[in-house]
Amino acid sequence: MSSKRNILIIGAGRSASCLIKYLLDKSEVENLQIVIADKVIASAENMAGSHPNATALCLDIFNAEKRIKAIQNAAIVISMLPARFHLEVAKDCVTYGKSLVTASYVSNEMMELDAAVKEKGLVFMNEIGLDPGIDHMSAMQIIDRIRDNGAKLLLFESFTGGLVAPESDDNLWNYKFTWNPRNVVVAGQGSAAKFIQEGKFKYIPYQKLFRRSEILYIDGYGKFEAIANRDSLKYRDAYKLHDVLTLYRGTIRKVGFSKAWNIFVQLGMTDDTYKMENTENMSYREFVNSFLPYHPYDSVELKLRSYLKIDQDDYLWEKLEELDLFNDQKSFEIKNGTPAQLIQKILMDKWTLQEEDKDMIVMLHKFGYEYKGEKKQIESSTVVIGEDQTYTAMAKTVGLPVAIATLKILNREITNPGVQIPITKEVYEPILKELAETGIVFTEKEVPYLGYNPDQING
Amino acid sequence: MSSKRNILIIGAGRSASCLIKYLLDKSEVENLQIVIADKVIASAENMAGSHPNATALCLDIFNAEKRIKAIQNAAIVISMLPARFHLEVAKDCVTYGKSLVTASYVSNEMMELDAAVKEKGLVFMNEIGLDPGIDHMSAMQIIDRIRDNGAKLLLFESFTGGLVAPESDDNLWNYKFTWNPRNVVVAGQGSAAKFIQEGKFKYIPYQKLFRRSEILYIDGYGKFEAIANRDSLKYRDAYKLHDVLTLYRGTIRKVGFSKAWNIFVQLGMTDDTYKMENTENMSYREFVNSFLPYHPYDSVELKLRSYLKIDQDDYLWEKLEELDLFNDQKSFEIKNGTPAQLIQKILMDKWTLQEEDKDMIVMLHKFGYEYKGEKKQIESSTVVIGEDQTYTAMAKTVGLPVAIATLKILNREITNPGVQIPITKEVYEPILKELAETGIVFTEKEVPYLGYNPDQING
Repeated sequence: MSSKRNILIIGAGRSASCLIKYLLDKSEVENLQIVIADKVIASAENMAGSHPNATALCLDIFNAEKRIKAIQNAAIVISMLPARFHLEVAKDCVTYGKSLVTASYVSNEMMELDAAVKEKGLVFMNEIGLDPGIDHMSAMQIIDRIRDNGAKLLLFESFTGGLVAPESDDNLWNYKFTWNPRNVVVAGQGSAAKFIQEGKFKYIPYQKLFRRSEILYIDGYGKFEAIANRDSLKYRDAYKLHDVLTLYRGTIRKVGFSKAWNIFVQLGMTDDTYKMENTENMSYREFVNSFLPYHPYDSVELKLRSYLKIDQDDYLWEKLEELDLFNDQKSFEIKNGTPAQLIQKILMDKWTLQEEDKDMIVMLHKFGYEYKGEKKQIESSTVVIGEDQTYTAMAKTVGLPVAIATLKILNREITNPGVQIPITKEVYEPILKELAETGIVFTEKEVPYLGYNPDQING
Repeated sequence: MSSKRNILIIGAGRSASCLIKYLLDKSEVENLQIVIADKVIASAENMAGSHPNATALCLDIFNAEKRIKAIQNAAIVISMLPARFHLEVAKDCVTYGKSLVTASYVSNEMMELDAAVKEKGLVFMNEIGLDPGIDHMSAMQIIDRIRDNGAKLLLFESFTGGLVAPESDDNLWNYKFTWNPRNVVVAGQGSAAKFIQEGKFKYIPYQKLFRRSEILYIDGYGKFEAIANRDSLKYRDAYKLHDVLTLYRGTIRKVGFSKAWNIFVQLGMTDDTYKMENTENMSYREFVNSFLPYHPYDSVELKLRSYLKIDQDDYLWEKLEELDLFNDQKSFEIKNGTPAQLIQKILMDKWTLQEEDKDMIVMLHKFGYEYKGEKKQIESSTVVIGEDQTYTAMAKTVGLPVAIATLKILNREITNPGVQIPITKEVYEPILKELAETGIVFTEKEVPYLGYNPDQING
C-alpha cells in the first residue's frame, strides 16, 4: 500500500470542526493523513483528538521555514486562516506545486497568482464555504439550467442568514450570535447598499437600511426578513447577470429584528470609528444617556421614547428592556471603547449561544425568467440546523464544501486549473450532490412570477 | 524716505478682496508695496487693479525658485492658499526669516516648525480669519476678563454661521451658498458630534445631527438654530476649559433649515463616498427615485412622503418643490457623480448668490460663570452684512483680521514669537479694537444664567 496522502489544514478554529471530521471519517478509505496546524497547538490537538490519521502541528505561518516544510509535505493545502493571511501560504503552494482550498473572498493579490497557478496545473479553489460558497453553487446550478433550456433570466435574488434554531429561540429579538458578533454590530456601514430593481439602480444609506427590510417566506419555517447587502452587484460579472432586471442580495433575520436594530443605528451605538470618554466605569444606562439630549431630571427612558417616537405600547420597548439597556448597575469593563464595542458587550450578555443551543443557517434564492413568452419564477431554499456547539450549522455549511472540494481536487475529479470560485458545473455538480447526502438539501418550487413590475409600467 | 516694505500675499481668491483693499488703503501711510501672487495671473491683476502700490505676480508655489525669490523680497508673508499648501511657504519663511500669517487651522507639520520659528524671533500667526479667527479673539477676550475678575467659568458655547442677508433672503430655506458649497453638503459627516453638557459627554451621530438643532436668539435679527460641530472640544486645551460643565460649538442656520436638510441626509443624498450609476443623463426626479423603493406606478412624490412620513400639509414639502427636486426635465451634466455632487448641483441652481445679493455673518458666544456665589451669563454677538459680491461679509470677516494682524506684526506691535493662534491679549486686544473701527462690533449683554441644569439634579 502506498504511503498516506497528507492534507494540510492551516487554522483549527471553530469553523474547522466539520471540515476535519469529514476528512477523518474518510481517511481510512481514502488513505489520508490529516495534518492540523495552528499557532495554538492546543487547538490543533483538540481537533486531532486521538484519531490515528490525524496529526497536530504547531505552526506560526510567519515562520517561513516551518510553513514551507509543512506545505512541502502536503498533497494539498486548506487555509482556514483569516483572509489576510492566505497570501504567504498561496505563494508557497505555487512554488511547491500544491493545490489550495479556502473559504475566503478572492483578493486581488490572490487573483494575481492565476497565471502561475494555471501554468503548474494547480487548482486554487476559493469562496467555497457557505456565503460565499454554497450560495455560488446552488445559484449557478439553477441559473445554468434556466439558460441551458433557452430561457431568459429576468430576476435573481439571494439571501443568507445565520440564526438561532427555532428550538433554541428564546429571546424577543429571535436572534443570537452564531458567528463573529462584531461583524453583526457593524453590518451595513460604509457606502450605501446598491442593487437593481426592474432595471433601476437603487441605493439605501446606512441610516435607512434597517427600515427597508423585505419579507421572505420559507415553507415550514414561516416568515423572515432580509436587509440588503452592500454588494448586491458583486457577482454580476461572474454570474453573467448583466441583463437581469432585478439583482438583489440580502441578509436574513427573523421578522422584526431590523426595526428594533434601527434604534441602535439611530442612537449612534453601532459606530466603530471613535472612542467614547470614560467607558471603563460607565453603566449601560449612562451609555444610553450619552446619545440623548441632556436634561436635569427627565428619565433616560422618556428621553429615548420621545427622541425615537416609541409609543408606550410598542413591542420594541420590551426588546430594549430584555437587553438590560437601562440598567445602572451593570457596567462595561472596556477602556476607551467605541460605541460598537460597548453595544456588542451589552448584546453578548444576552445573545451568546448557551451550551444546549443550536444554530440555524437559512438560504433562499429567487430566479425569475421568461420561457417561450411566459414569465416564471423558481424559489430554492435550504435550512440547516446545527447538532450542538461543536458541529454547528455554521461549521457544517462552511466546512463541508471545503472538505468535499479538497478531496475531489486531490482525487482529480476537479481538475480545471487556476484561481477560481465554484461557479462551473465541473465543480458545483459533484459538490452539491455530496452536500445533499450530508443533509444540506435545496428545496425547489415554482411560484408565480413576481418581479417588481407586474404591469411593466415605468416607475 | 526708506524703500517700501513688501507684503507678499499668496493666493488671490475671493476671500482676499477685503484683505487687499485694507492693505492698499494703508499703503501710502504705512509705506507698503502689496505683492499679490497667484497661479492665475489674471486673478492677481484683477485684485491689484491700477493701484500704484500693488504688484501682480504670477506664482506657482511648486516652482521653488520663484517662490523663494518672492519670499526673500518680502518683509512679511500672507498665505491665503488652501491649508495643505502652506507648508512649503512656511518652511521658506523660516529659512529666510519672514513672519507668516494664515487664516487656516494649524497643522501638525506647521506646529513642528514652532521651535525654529521662535529661535528666529518670527511670528507665525494662524487661524486669524473668521472661524477660526474672530471666534478665538472675541471669546478669549471675555473668558480672560471673567477669570481676571476672579469668577469661575461654568459654560462656554460658541456659534457661527455664514448666511444670506435678510434683504436678500428670498427662498423658503432662508439660505444661500456664501462659501464653498461642497463643505455645506458634507457638513457633519464622519464621527459623531461630541460635546459636554453639565459635565456629561454627549454624542450625536450624523443620522440624527439635523434633528438635534438648538434655538438661538440675537437682538434685532430674531431666532436662529444651531447644529453641533463635530469638534466642540477642539479648543478645550487652548482656552483652558477643562473645568467647565458645558462646552458646545455649533453652526448657525435660520430656523427650520436643519429639519428640511435632514430629508437629504435620510435619503442618502449627501453621501460623497461612492459614485452613482448613469448620472450623466439622470434627471433630478430619477435622482430622487434612486433612493426610494421601486414601484411600477406609484409616484416619486408619494413614495417620498410615505418613506419620510411627510404630511400632506407639511411646509417641508414646499421647500423640496422650490428646489425643483421632482423635475424630470432637468438633468445633471456630471459623469459618475457622487450623491453629494448631484445634490450640490440641484442646490446651486437655487442657492447661488445673485449679483445684487448680500451675505451675512452671524456669531454668538454664551459664557456662564459663578461670581461670589452667584451664577451669571453673558451673551456676546456680532452680525456683519456684506457690501456686495466682492466685499462680502465673509471676505471682510476672514480678510480684515489677517490684514490687521499682518500690519501689526510688521510694525512690531505683535512680537511674541512662535507658531500660534490669536488667543493672547497681546494679539486679540489691538486687533478686536481695530475690527470694531471697521464695523465688526460685538454686542454684549447680561442674561439670566441658563446652563443646562438649573436645579442641579443628576440627569
